[in-house]
Amino acid sequence: MGHNNGVPLPCIFAILACLLTLHVNMALAERSTYIVHMDKSLMPKSFTSHQHWYSSIVNSFKTDLHTSLGHHRFAPSLLYTYDNAFHGFSAVLSAAELETLEKSPAFVSAYKDKTVTVDTTHTTQFLSLNPSTGLLPASNYGEDIIVGVIDSGIWPESDSFRDDGLTKNIPARWKGTCEVGQEFNASLCNNKLIGARYFNKGVKAANPGVTLSMNSARDTEGHGTHTSSTATGNFVNGASYFGYAKGTARGVAPRSRVAMYKVLWDEGRYASDVLAGMDQAIADGVDVISISMGFDGTPLYEDPVAIASFAAMEKNVVVSSSAGNEGTDGLGKLHNGIPWALTVAAGTIDRSFGGTLSLGNGVTLPGFTLFPANALIDKLPLVYNKTLSACNDTELLYTGPSAIIICDDIADIRGQISHIVASEVLGAVFISNDPVVHELGSVTTPSVLVSPDDAPALIKYAKTSASPVISIAFQQTFVRTKPAPAAAFYTSRGPSSSYPGILKPDIMAPGSLVLAAWLPNVAAGQIGGNVMLPSDYNLISGTSMACPHASGVAALLRGAHPEWSAAAIRSALVTTANPLDNTRNPILDNGDSFNFASPLAMGAGQIDPNRALEPGLIYDATKQDYVNLLCSTNFTRKQILAITRSHDYDCSTPSCDLNYPSFIALYGRHHPKKYRVKEFQRTVTNVGDGAAKYKHYKNVG
Amino acid sequence: MGHNNGVPLPCIFAILACLLTLHVNMALAERSTYIVHMDKSLMPKSFTSHQHWYSSIVNSFKTDLHTSLGHHRFAPSLLYTYDNAFHGFSAVLSAAELETLEKSPAFVSAYKDKTVTVDTTHTTQFLSLNPSTGLLPASNYGEDIIVGVIDSGIWPESDSFRDDGLTKNIPARWKGTCEVGQEFNASLCNNKLIGARYFNKGVKAANPGVTLSMNSARDTEGHGTHTSSTATGNFVNGASYFGYAKGTARGVAPRSRVAMYKVLWDEGRYASDVLAGMDQAIADGVDVISISMGFDGTPLYEDPVAIASFAAMEKNVVVSSSAGNEGTDGLGKLHNGIPWALTVAAGTIDRSFGGTLSLGNGVTLPGFTLFPANALIDKLPLVYNKTLSACNDTELLYTGPSAIIICDDIADIRGQISHIVASEVLGAVFISNDPVVHELGSVTTPSVLVSPDDAPALIKYAKTSASPVISIAFQQTFVRTKPAPAAAFYTSRGPSSSYPGILKPDIMAPGSLVLAAWLPNVAAGQIGGNVMLPSDYNLISGTSMACPHASGVAALLRGAHPEWSAAAIRSALVTTANPLDNTRNPILDNGDSFNFASPLAMGAGQIDPNRALEPGLIYDATKQDYVNLLCSTNFTRKQILAITRSHDYDCSTPSCDLNYPSFIALYGRHHPKKYRVKEFQRTVTNVGDGAAKYKHYKNVG
Repeated sequence: MGHNNGVPLPCIFAILACLLTLHVNMALAERSTYIVHMDKSLMPKSFTSHQHWYSSIVNSFKTDLHTSLGHHRFAPSLLYTYDNAFHGFSAVLSAAELETLEKSPAFVSAYKDKTVTVDTTHTTQFLSLNPSTGLLPASNYGEDIIVGVIDSGIWPESDSFRDDGLTKNIPARWKGTCEVGQEFNASLCNNKLIGARYFNKGVKAANPGVTLSMNSARDTEGHGTHTSSTATGNFVNGASYFGYAKGTARGVAPRSRVAMYKVLWDEGRYASDVLAGMDQAIADGVDVISISMGFDGTPLYEDPVAIASFAAMEKNVVVSSSAGNEGTDGLGKLHNGIPWALTVAAGTIDRSFGGTLSLGNGVTLPGFTLFPANALIDKLPLVYNKTLSACNDTELLYTGPSAIIICDDIADIRGQISHIVASEVLGAVFISNDPVVHELGSVTTPSVLVSPDDAPALIKYAKTSASPVISIAFQQTFVRTKPAPAAAFYTSRGPSSSYPGILKPDIMAPGSLVLAAWLPNVAAGQIGGNVMLPSDYNLISGTSMACPHASGVAALLRGAHPEWSAAAIRSALVTTANPLDNTRNPILDNGDSFNFASPLAMGAGQIDPNRALEPGLIYDATKQDYVNLLCSTNFTRKQILAITRSHDYDCSTPSCDLNYPSFIALYGRHHPKKYRVKEFQRTVTNVGDGAAKYKHYKNVG
Repeated sequence: MGHNNGVPLPCIFAILACLLTLHVNMALAERSTYIVHMDKSLMPKSFTSHQHWYSSIVNSFKTDLHTSLGHHRFAPSLLYTYDNAFHGFSAVLSAAELETLEKSPAFVSAYKDKTVTVDTTHTTQFLSLNPSTGLLPASNYGEDIIVGVIDSGIWPESDSFRDDGLTKNIPARWKGTCEVGQEFNASLCNNKLIGARYFNKGVKAANPGVTLSMNSARDTEGHGTHTSSTATGNFVNGASYFGYAKGTARGVAPRSRVAMYKVLWDEGRYASDVLAGMDQAIADGVDVISISMGFDGTPLYEDPVAIASFAAMEKNVVVSSSAGNEGTDGLGKLHNGIPWALTVAAGTIDRSFGGTLSLGNGVTLPGFTLFPANALIDKLPLVYNKTLSACNDTELLYTGPSAIIICDDIADIRGQISHIVASEVLGAVFISNDPVVHELGSVTTPSVLVSPDDAPALIKYAKTSASPVISIAFQQTFVRTKPAPAAAFYTSRGPSSSYPGILKPDIMAPGSLVLAAWLPNVAAGQIGGNVMLPSDYNLISGTSMACPHASGVAALLRGAHPEWSAAAIRSALVTTANPLDNTRNPILDNGDSFNFASPLAMGAGQIDPNRALEPGLIYDATKQDYVNLLCSTNFTRKQILAITRSHDYDCSTPSCDLNYPSFIALYGRHHPKKYRVKEFQRTVTNVGDGAAKYKHYKNVG
């Protein structure tokens, strides 16, 4: 029956009633949103459904409160009930109410709602998939695959979500819907955008009386539109970012279907809403969940992404998540370090934007810029002198000559840019290799970055010519730049603080200056202090942009190999990843002085979709394998249950030797060298055609 | 023989020699360029050509000077000899040398070189010609006609000068050439741009030692490229000014041939060069001369355009010139008021650019703007308060709210714009009907102009809404706006100070915000204080833009009626001009508080190409008729000869009753009313098909 060991519910209510009368005033002030995990097996028979059960619990609090206060304004309220990602609900409760609740045997765990970190800073679209060979045709461009994107909503009118070329054969497993809301009617969905829902109860509970700026699945910030189109966008000709990156925009799986679950709001970003979105996505029947956000410093059993991903894994839904944008501020700041989900780091791509400098002496030099207009700098005076060229004095620059100023590399590129912007000089040439500008891009005044390697020629000309002049050609795009990829300076480094025993991140995907769909009403570029410019496509950077690349590849793999488990798909991605860049040298780390990137920055290396199609061997894992891993931790039974949700799992064979496709051994600095040996046990499955021979290579780090 | 009454040349030399030794030091300081008119009939037999004669004269000065000074650096020098526009030369001479020269019987007149005024302020292209009926097909789009443009040069690579669709049958009368120069080789000419020459001796003489920034027919400022393409430009799809006025750019006579005579230089604009250009154009065999510049306050006999136009008229070359951009600063400031040339005023066109405002309450209002980017103003706060909304305090605005500011109509729109630009506010809505902004257009910060008629609704919303917001849609183009045309505020008003007895200007043509070809290396737009933007097409305004419209129409008429004289073509244009606007009311004058435009502003009215094709009657005039007019003035014989150049004309029948297609009678303010009657005598020629009956209408002003 499943509820044999439960305390009869009326008892709980009685206790609650007592407590409430004592704590009512305090409770009012302290009431906040909690996410509550329940053991569904203990649901009393009297309830017809889990919703009924949970609402009864919360209503019982209300009834009592009503009596004592006479109004409902600050009443406890049920936000969501969850049944797919986990069993439980979120509700606005006081500490006292929670305390009461905790005494119920069916109670598993509860934690305060928390805000989620979105993994965008700014980024580009880079794809190496071939339309005629490899993974793309093998998966029919992802046509039968549904990608659920948990994000800030979507701009349904974007050309990226047109359904040209897509069939009406939406897979029968699809149970989702196109939810009507503000400026969003059901006819906005089509054969590409097959679903759109929104989850606002958490944000509303956290901000009583708030009016949501857009109470629907419509995106108001651009993040969700960008990530969705990166994973699934249809082909769109003539896309560009103000003339840069001109060409055809397309998602990784251009014929896959997309469903948006809006959980991020201008007014806040809450775990309860994220959980509700993931819960619904699993119920709706998506094949892949793409989630470009994460919860920092949260244990697995309180991490909504980890919890929902476990349920997703059970249903063979691949969850692809972003590692975070904490950069090298410290190891272990990575989020989404979940053993049963894919954790994606961000890398640069083999493309740059110019900015070509032509000096009056005929010399041309490459420069980097994303200034969002074709500024006219044609044979303007070029100035270099020690006073001015520090570019750290707005007043001096403002009263300086009407010219293009060379700015010396004083290791403060951000400061120099702000002085140049404020002083409205005609233009600037910054000498810097700082990846911050190269990976984030935008400047609001006509200027370019020149490598310190090229600086001597530039400065010599400026100092020795009688009347030095410079021309700069903007809106240029260069491809096949080397070396690429490099680990992005901002990508969060492992190991995972949630579970350091599994190497995280898993892989790296393009994240820096990714071109994808944007909103027409949110600025994509800026000129000067007050001119905001829209663009239907935007170049932004972050692990948020890397994640949907991996999600798209996972969708293609799901299409090409419908028989593979989620673990098999992750294994294929990890074992085929490329640790070398396009110069055939180890991938460098822009965040670590251009040294070789460690697996803690990029996992197994750059994602390689076509190789992942035929990985040869895979490291598969069952649900029980993950439970065995959890059982090997010091988590309590209830903490484990918060993740696994079921008593059916067996905790009798705990093992930290998860059959994972990568290996990590952590040693302290003073760990004796002779003990630095760790044995791993793995089982591989041959998914290649027929028998194959594999050799074992010893790899000592 | 023609030189019977001349003093033998050796005598002149002797006198010169004496004078030079006395005045040499003074002469050095005072030497400048003179344009010298000579009586070619008095050329001594010993000279084989006029060039030989003129160079001998100047060389004689040199020889003497050489003796006394020992070097040539400041020697007198011959710049040009002229033989078509008039007989004579320009030379760098001292006052003393000139004095000597004046004593020669062959000397007609001389005057110092002067600088020319170019008639652009800023403008648009507006055409009402129909490809299938009327003047355009009747003239085969001007295919056999050659338009000579006297201007700042041309950008030969502009799409407007491609020769697609033009035959190789350049008329045999064409004697011109494609002159090689800096960044200009002969292959840049084609079947559209059939000639290009440059005339720099005057500018070099006036600026000794100067290095010309572009020593060729290549345009460096845009004016000549704009006027040439307005008169003759080929069809160019997808032209626009930063998204405004999007569509197909084309000249008035799109299949006519064009020849550029560059006479305007970055380093200066001199009469001697203008004369040289016109002289050469006549010699080369052009059909129409388009000259968008003029000499202010110059009598006819010293006005290069008047002098050259007389020679052009003799060869049936139509000269179309611009009235000037002096506006209403006083009557009679018009230039090119030449009885034998067409004088073109500028009008507005039936097009506007937006700027649509959408208020948070759903109200939309039309606004005017040409801000050169699609600035994003989407539901931004709208502010109206008495302190801020004067928009006359940069400091106050700078520290004000981040919002769109409504600026009251304080009758200082230019001042307000500069405060708004300097304070970098997000955007401004100016309440103003000032035609200065409507006709000149550009603003460098996101802002729009709203009519005072629409202001109450705007201000009321801003004052009464709790949180007023505004959206502004830029890059909009509205056509068929009414009323149009209106006389441009800047167009110079008649009467002509050179000869007030003929009504000038003759007609009005589109001059305000005309879209035509531009240079890629000269800014066409600006954002903020330092971002210059290029555009291949530019919207600029001025009588300089009106003139080439009339030149193009004249070219079409020449093509449709090869038998007509230049006077007949001018008559057809004047008698068919339309004094009514598109509301069928009299044309208004933007420079005169929107009152009815006087003929002193617009001549006979707006040019009407199709009606000019069949004028019915024409007022023709012979060369002798113009001489009779000159003979009726108080000009001296030599002054008249400076224009007519020939003794063959008869001065025995002076008459101020030139057979002109318009009528003007000037009275002083206190002129007795009963004497305010003036009789005009005219002879009309029927150029219609067969006999026709015309009624006489008495028109008393």
